[in-house]
Amino acid sequence: MNAAIMTVGDEILIGQIVDTNSAWLGQKLTDLGISVVRALSVGDDHKMIINGLEQCLESADIVFMTGGLGPTKDDITKKALADFLGVGLYFHQPTFDRIKAMFEKLGRKLSDHHHDQCLMPEGADILRNAMGTAPGMMMKVADKRIISMPGVPFEMKSIMEEVVLPMLAAESDTVIFHRTILTCGAGETQIENAIADIVGDFPPAIGIAYLPAIGQVRLRLTAKGNDKASLRQDLDTFTKKITDRISDLVYGYDGSSLEAELKNICTARGIFIATAESCTGGNVAATIVSVPGSSAYFSGGTVAYANDIKTKTLGVSPETLLNYGAVSEETVIEMARGVIALSGADVSVAVSGIAGPEGGTPEKPVGTIWICAGNTEKHITYLLKSGKDRKLNIEAATTYSLILLRRFILDNY
Amino acid sequence: MNAAIMTVGDEILIGQIVDTNSAWLGQKLTDLGISVVRALSVGDDHKMIINGLEQCLESADIVFMTGGLGPTKDDITKKALADFLGVGLYFHQPTFDRIKAMFEKLGRKLSDHHHDQCLMPEGADILRNAMGTAPGMMMKVADKRIISMPGVPFEMKSIMEEVVLPMLAAESDTVIFHRTILTCGAGETQIENAIADIVGDFPPAIGIAYLPAIGQVRLRLTAKGNDKASLRQDLDTFTKKITDRISDLVYGYDGSSLEAELKNICTARGIFIATAESCTGGNVAATIVSVPGSSAYFSGGTVAYANDIKTKTLGVSPETLLNYGAVSEETVIEMARGVIALSGADVSVAVSGIAGPEGGTPEKPVGTIWICAGNTEKHITYLLKSGKDRKLNIEAATTYSLILLRRFILDNY
Repeated sequence: MNAAIMTVGDEILIGQIVDTNSAWLGQKLTDLGISVVRALSVGDDHKMIINGLEQCLESADIVFMTGGLGPTKDDITKKALADFLGVGLYFHQPTFDRIKAMFEKLGRKLSDHHHDQCLMPEGADILRNAMGTAPGMMMKVADKRIISMPGVPFEMKSIMEEVVLPMLAAESDTVIFHRTILTCGAGETQIENAIADIVGDFPPAIGIAYLPAIGQVRLRLTAKGNDKASLRQDLDTFTKKITDRISDLVYGYDGSSLEAELKNICTARGIFIATAESCTGGNVAATIVSVPGSSAYFSGGTVAYANDIKTKTLGVSPETLLNYGAVSEETVIEMARGVIALSGADVSVAVSGIAGPEGGTPEKPVGTIWICAGNTEKHITYLLKSGKDRKLNIEAATTYSLILLRRFILDNY
Repeated sequence: MNAAIMTVGDEILIGQIVDTNSAWLGQKLTDLGISVVRALSVGDDHKMIINGLEQCLESADIVFMTGGLGPTKDDITKKALADFLGVGLYFHQPTFDRIKAMFEKLGRKLSDHHHDQCLMPEGADILRNAMGTAPGMMMKVADKRIISMPGVPFEMKSIMEEVVLPMLAAESDTVIFHRTILTCGAGETQIENAIADIVGDFPPAIGIAYLPAIGQVRLRLTAKGNDKASLRQDLDTFTKKITDRISDLVYGYDGSSLEAELKNICTARGIFIATAESCTGGNVAATIVSVPGSSAYFSGGTVAYANDIKTKTLGVSPETLLNYGAVSEETVIEMARGVIALSGADVSVAVSGIAGPEGGTPEKPVGTIWICAGNTEKHITYLLKSGKDRKLNIEAATTYSLILLRRFILDNY
């Protein structure tokens, strides 16, 4: 099955927002074995929407539209859809009742705009939106289909995950399985070389893609064919072979993450962790806390941005700061110990660096970042030499902090 | 002049990378008064590229292509371009000489791929790429044009900024101006109603779009026409009228953000801020620190995830926690005071809530979030009733924490 993605909104074309919906949809559809043949963005314009639909349906069996369903007046998508289908719009009472109930619960008033959100092209199937007011719609065009969803990413994702993807999975004939092996601590080329002979033995039905990110490489294995059982078994076999070969680098599989695996590692050992951050400004803690249930193993932390707080809260000695500077191995070691004393956690990670764009020196250029993971008795440190971009430096420092924390716990508990 | 953007690459359609080139191009072209009428992504496929070019040229005077020129692609894009134009490919010696010189300087060897990079469609103008090997190309199709550039963002941007944009600026006739008014603290519908009469007075050359996000709505005004001076004046006039009407909601303009405006507010007043976070787990601090130069006004903060840290570090009284709970107005007030004592900051913001998915009770369901902003003398608090999604709750709590912090500073300093 071929699919096209069509995003609607002037804000996309003028570059006010980056269209992330298309990439998300592309990934999910690809995972289901559906080929995405084009992704088109058009403005909030009746003629352009109709023209785009025509062109998308030339090469695709199903068009996934997002955007243009918001409650304000620049909404013309539904009118264009109805005209394209040659039908009228009707008032969908169940949607109105749902929106009304939502608003009553929140103590807010409905407006005329919400009334308009209940207008649907005749013949459309209504797709439940658990996260917002405007529902999705599915419409038939001869033997093809159009699925229209709101542009707000979490609403679109909710409709896809709860309604559309299960429906498509049930229809599919060829099966495609994916297995992603998550690694950290080595580069793409290094991993590729380490497993070259295993990959050389792959049967034709199995493929591999290397997806590098900061400090991490994901290895995505894809099995495509008709025989479910043998494809699954092949995937299992080669996943195990690769994992055995680079076991020190593999930290998880599929949709997991360093922070999610940290939860498993900590709760299995019954230990609590804490963070002491300077340049990352709370991002390491926020990443840990992004995992539901993190209160079972995360005590908390300190964002010691000013040196004063490093001294006062974390007990970093003024001499250390004076002699070695805030960005030094000595300082992060004291920060890591300090936050353990403060929080009563078993293990901590500390990070201090120069995120930039200002603040670099010839000896410590922007991107110089020290990290320490340890407990009251011992520690390991790492000097990350990142680049000039503030955002990337903070991301890299966060990832390497989690990597170091994981390594310390695995080696000592 | 109408433009279309066309990005080429399987990696875009399968969602392996998010296409940021289109948004960047959209912004730059819009700024020049060129209307972007569509953005299309197609795979590395000869037929799809030609088909895409045909469709883009139907509605656009100029097509900006990115991607498909890298040294590992099979040169599908250039062959497709040549076939579309009905010309052959020739070897462009000056490009080869430039690549050769680049590589000699780096001490690296040329491969056959680099030889292929010097093949150009006959009749194409070569656009200098100062940042990489593959140059851009400009080709005429009757009275229309195709500009093809590499997909690597910094190479594409370099060609645009050094060659293409200056050329287009010199040609432009119609102008388009945008002004975005950034608001926080009210919903889309509420704002629309509040300014309905002003919008009703807009001349035909001015349009408005409402772009909602959590806790915020951006109002984008667009002016399009020939008379630069009068368009600019109209934009200024209506921006001022709207700002005056909802002055308590407007926090900035155009590409700014709450955290960037916080910098201006704090540095203008010479005050330092601090954060005390529970459910946001450091995300408020991390958002503040995402702004370069934040060390000039951000002292730091505490991530008091465990109650123990709330008591020990922030001095929240155990009685308060016992009587009112960690998620209460009383607790966030004490957290906010505690972090000021700890950090020596002038103003602080504290947040404690139930991010979910677990931990809710009938009285305090998931999404119940208390926020306090204050100094040693007074404070304001806010009860945010968010939803069930942990990620969104953390985002919402972060945004409202910044909104409350801003409000307190503006009202008291």
